[in-house]
Amino acid sequence: MNTGNRPGPFALPDLQNTFPGPFPANAHAGTVEEHLRRWIAERNLPVPPAGLQTLCGITAQGIARAFPAADLGALLPAGELFVWLVAFDDAHGETSAAADPTALADRAAELTQALAGEVPVHPESPFTTALRGVLARFRDRATPAQYLRLTGHLRDNLLGLLWEAHHLTAPGRVPLPVYCAMRPLTVFVRTLMAIAPITLSYELSARHHSLDPVRRMETAVAHLAGWVNDLASYQRESRAGAAPLSLPTLLMAERRLTLPEAFETAARMCEEQAATARGLIDGLSAGGPSPLTRHAQAMRHLVHAFIWHIRHDRYVPAPAVPQA
Amino acid sequence: MNTGNRPGPFALPDLQNTFPGPFPANAHAGTVEEHLRRWIAERNLPVPPAGLQTLCGITAQGIARAFPAADLGALLPAGELFVWLVAFDDAHGETSAAADPTALADRAAELTQALAGEVPVHPESPFTTALRGVLARFRDRATPAQYLRLTGHLRDNLLGLLWEAHHLTAPGRVPLPVYCAMRPLTVFVRTLMAIAPITLSYELSARHHSLDPVRRMETAVAHLAGWVNDLASYQRESRAGAAPLSLPTLLMAERRLTLPEAFETAARMCEEQAATARGLIDGLSAGGPSPLTRHAQAMRHLVHAFIWHIRHDRYVPAPAVPQA
Repeated sequence: MNTGNRPGPFALPDLQNTFPGPFPANAHAGTVEEHLRRWIAERNLPVPPAGLQTLCGITAQGIARAFPAADLGALLPAGELFVWLVAFDDAHGETSAAADPTALADRAAELTQALAGEVPVHPESPFTTALRGVLARFRDRATPAQYLRLTGHLRDNLLGLLWEAHHLTAPGRVPLPVYCAMRPLTVFVRTLMAIAPITLSYELSARHHSLDPVRRMETAVAHLAGWVNDLASYQRESRAGAAPLSLPTLLMAERRLTLPEAFETAARMCEEQAATARGLIDGLSAGGPSPLTRHAQAMRHLVHAFIWHIRHDRYVPAPAVPQA
Repeated sequence: MNTGNRPGPFALPDLQNTFPGPFPANAHAGTVEEHLRRWIAERNLPVPPAGLQTLCGITAQGIARAFPAADLGALLPAGELFVWLVAFDDAHGETSAAADPTALADRAAELTQALAGEVPVHPESPFTTALRGVLARFRDRATPAQYLRLTGHLRDNLLGLLWEAHHLTAPGRVPLPVYCAMRPLTVFVRTLMAIAPITLSYELSARHHSLDPVRRMETAVAHLAGWVNDLASYQRESRAGAAPLSLPTLLMAERRLTLPEAFETAARMCEEQAATARGLIDGLSAGGPSPLTRHAQAMRHLVHAFIWHIRHDRYVPAPAVPQA
């Protein structure tokens, strides 16, 4: 699936020094991919047949890189939740949501009930029913605080998608700092961060969660994840014609850059975040075995997953050009 | 402030048998009211001077009935958070939000950052700055799970206001069960439920939170709170001309009732929820002193606050008619 090619003539960040490959991958990736394909079919999630293989492949391989050492039982719900997020966004976020924000608000309302654990008041959409099932699996594995943290981030994803829906058709109106703050919510990276302790069976205390280096590490990882996705998906999202709500678009508008210059700037921004993240990951891992070290290493693997996924076919338009 | 009058010619529920008054009130109500007035001024919250006294009075008296036995130090943040919610809704929800949902989405985005504990990326609105301050006070008092539960409900409030903004101008399109499910989110009652254990220093375990009688008690209280507010505020919200997004409107549309019939039906629905809530509160309190009993009694006092507040001037249009 991963061709190693990169899109078009524009720069992608050089992350070889900060996060050198090859990235370790969980041996269960193939099993997860099979499971996700079956799960999507059984849950009647509206995934176009043409996109099913790519969606399940990229999710399974991404999750396998995010959690290389997780056992299969822990990996499956992580894969389900992430494929759910991407499939929901593909089906009801982005273009559909921008055309009809009320429809997204209605879907978010139904999901909000599921996230709050309220009983269904009427027949629910396949996405809501599927989410209830995944949440039940996480509730069984998580501590109360871990579960509440996860559902908080899922609500943030809904708020992020609603916010995005209102700006997708006029990205130039969004200030760059606001975009950078909201982007982690639409790339689901903080939700993956909340999945990590549940999937890998460690618990970070509230004090650890609020430590300055932990927060800065997570922020750097969150920015990096959103921005590499922006660079990789720019051409794909530009196909509709209008400029996408994406880091290069906002850099062009705010700093009066050409598109290649914006890519160059964004690539440097990614490299800076990668250096920050790497330094903090190493620092937090220096104390030997502890939940902090496990969390820092989990963040390292999350970065691997995001770096890996931007080289995936989903984001590489044909005809591919040789990797520089 | 509480005139004891009721709006217009329509029925209000008879809750004398289930929640008989007089309702105990915290002796610090006056101090809270003074504090809230000062707090709103110091935080530069955009509350119209004409509405300031009513807002602070009804909030302080309501909070005093919700938490009759709380000490002042615990009562003040509860009052701040509730007055914040009402003032934010008055300023940026409802009519303003319906006219410009994008503006509300932008405000919600900024608040989402505050709720997630992210550092500000640019100068924030007074509402966001004020919320950060209140959240810090709650974080100091709450256990991690209590705090995560509270911020989860606050996110639900934002999702509820966004959902409402998309439907306010065409309430007839909203199915009744969906309205009933979402109404607790726009009346902030579940947020008050999450404030209760923090304000009163008890902790309900995750197992207790998910007990069927606890959930049914909370659901009945949540419905009751939303619906009595709907009945009391109907005339006030109808002044703009269009039918408000409110239980009587939806009952009229869905069951082809006149407005008086819809009020009569809604009043009976309130009485049924009150009977359910009261029965479960008594049942959960039967086991003697325990966190469950404390929670059930806290829910009883929350009901008092909501019943009390609907007789307030804010909802009683002049000229007042004698109470039946």
